[in-house]
Amino acid sequence: MSGPSTSAGAQEDGSLSLSKRPDPRLSINQATIKYANLETALKVTADAGIQAIGLWREPVNEVGLDVAAGMLSDSGLRFTTHCRGGFFTLPEGPERLVALDDNRRAIEETATLAAAGAEGSTATLVLVAGGLPEGSRDLIGARERVRDAIGTLAPFAEQAGVTLAIEPLHPMYASDRAVVSTLGQALDIAADFEPSVVGAAVDTFHIWWDPQVLEQIARAGREGRITTYQVCDWKTPLPADVLLSRHHTGDGVIDFASLTEAVVATGYDRDIEVEIFNADIWAQDPAEVVRRTAEAFGAAVSPHLR
Amino acid sequence: MSGPSTSAGAQEDGSLSLSKRPDPRLSINQATIKYANLETALKVTADAGIQAIGLWREPVNEVGLDVAAGMLSDSGLRFTTHCRGGFFTLPEGPERLVALDDNRRAIEETATLAAAGAEGSTATLVLVAGGLPEGSRDLIGARERVRDAIGTLAPFAEQAGVTLAIEPLHPMYASDRAVVSTLGQALDIAADFEPSVVGAAVDTFHIWWDPQVLEQIARAGREGRITTYQVCDWKTPLPADVLLSRHHTGDGVIDFASLTEAVVATGYDRDIEVEIFNADIWAQDPAEVVRRTAEAFGAAVSPHLR
Repeated sequence: MSGPSTSAGAQEDGSLSLSKRPDPRLSINQATIKYANLETALKVTADAGIQAIGLWREPVNEVGLDVAAGMLSDSGLRFTTHCRGGFFTLPEGPERLVALDDNRRAIEETATLAAAGAEGSTATLVLVAGGLPEGSRDLIGARERVRDAIGTLAPFAEQAGVTLAIEPLHPMYASDRAVVSTLGQALDIAADFEPSVVGAAVDTFHIWWDPQVLEQIARAGREGRITTYQVCDWKTPLPADVLLSRHHTGDGVIDFASLTEAVVATGYDRDIEVEIFNADIWAQDPAEVVRRTAEAFGAAVSPHLR
Repeated sequence: MSGPSTSAGAQEDGSLSLSKRPDPRLSINQATIKYANLETALKVTADAGIQAIGLWREPVNEVGLDVAAGMLSDSGLRFTTHCRGGFFTLPEGPERLVALDDNRRAIEETATLAAAGAEGSTATLVLVAGGLPEGSRDLIGARERVRDAIGTLAPFAEQAGVTLAIEPLHPMYASDRAVVSTLGQALDIAADFEPSVVGAAVDTFHIWWDPQVLEQIARAGREGRITTYQVCDWKTPLPADVLLSRHHTGDGVIDFASLTEAVVATGYDRDIEVEIFNADIWAQDPAEVVRRTAEAFGAAVSPHLR
């Protein structure tokens, strides 16, 4: 059911990429090949023998939702997540209402794409909470507004059959990107809602450092909240733009054994996304990036799925 | 007893720096004026009317411990912390033994300097745990070795009358500088030891983002573990070298009200250090940096000490 399948022997051209089929549970998050449009992203993913993809709103809306859904359906790929909603920390006012409206559209997009994907697709919208509003130091207040916004959106998500995945981001993004900083905090927010409506994104890059990570993964499993498991690696020195410090699995210091085994132990049996923000990787040919992603995943993550 | 004292009115030259005396609880951590030697650091601190200083090992050892102790004594300043011991994550072997020996010397230095400082000095050695050893992904093992090393050093510290302050560092340093990443984790390690021997450094820069920060500060107080309270600010974008991303209090997004009030509520009544690593600030005249530090502290921190 899991782990990469290997053919009887190496291909005549000696290519490793042809001799191993990608792990059937690997999903390529489209951000990993940021500069590929939707058509290219779907094609290189399917051509590599990968079975699933996570999409981003911008390239979907570039072609329009209905066209995107048709392209996804034609690709034969499973749809794993839609990225992303959120930006919930704005105080009351017109900007906040615009953000909430935009999240409702993201929920609708998620439902449409999940229905268009192959069997086994999941209707998951990843939420990035947003940072402190300009000029504010009220972190506690910003965190409360995240809870309030999810409360506003939850009925829409439930009606659409979409699960909202609160993504805790690494604490180095707490001021400017996401005031949700740990898996435990995400689960505390999610606890107010049904697990089918609000869960958490478990992303190794953001939570690997947390002394409580293994117990919080176990808790997330017990509470039915692991909505998506995402992997990429951490390595220092960090680049000048710390947003772009994500690496191929195995290229850094994250222990994918303990984290993946903890996720598997909860019974999580769905697809696993690789999501990499990295300027050097973005500059490469997307087909090559996808091939390398599958190879790295097969070496660093697949062994722990067995 | 706390809060800045203000003279009857503005000086004739209108200078704010002359019209306000620095907060009597402010201590300048020498790292804030990194390029000043010990003589200059002591002089500019005392000349600014500041009453306390935290020292670093390198500038102390540059002149020799006995000479440094004499200079400190002559300055009339209180001594608040010695920075720093640690580097505990190395596996068994000669390098680890060298590191432990060096920590024993740091403990002796701390005791000598505390005895030389003015009344109210504290014998506190700040410990930075160290990152993952080269090529290792075993974060859990590295964290256990920190506990083991502190167990080895604790009897020496106790005999010398020195308190070891475990400093949790921001999680962005977890792989290369300190595997102790939260105040809660530092307290869990400290729990094996007497509070007079092992405590924690509460540094706003490192812990401000933590959803558990207020409850962990309260816990640290209950358990008698707030060995030193250090302040500086967080602001984005982070500079290319994220080690140098510390700012004057009030220049960033940290809410010094809630954090300082939480520390004060525990009964903490000792000095408060400002420790800033910032290339732009280091490039300035140290006397001016100290003046600005006192001014910023008076505006951002002092009001919450009352």
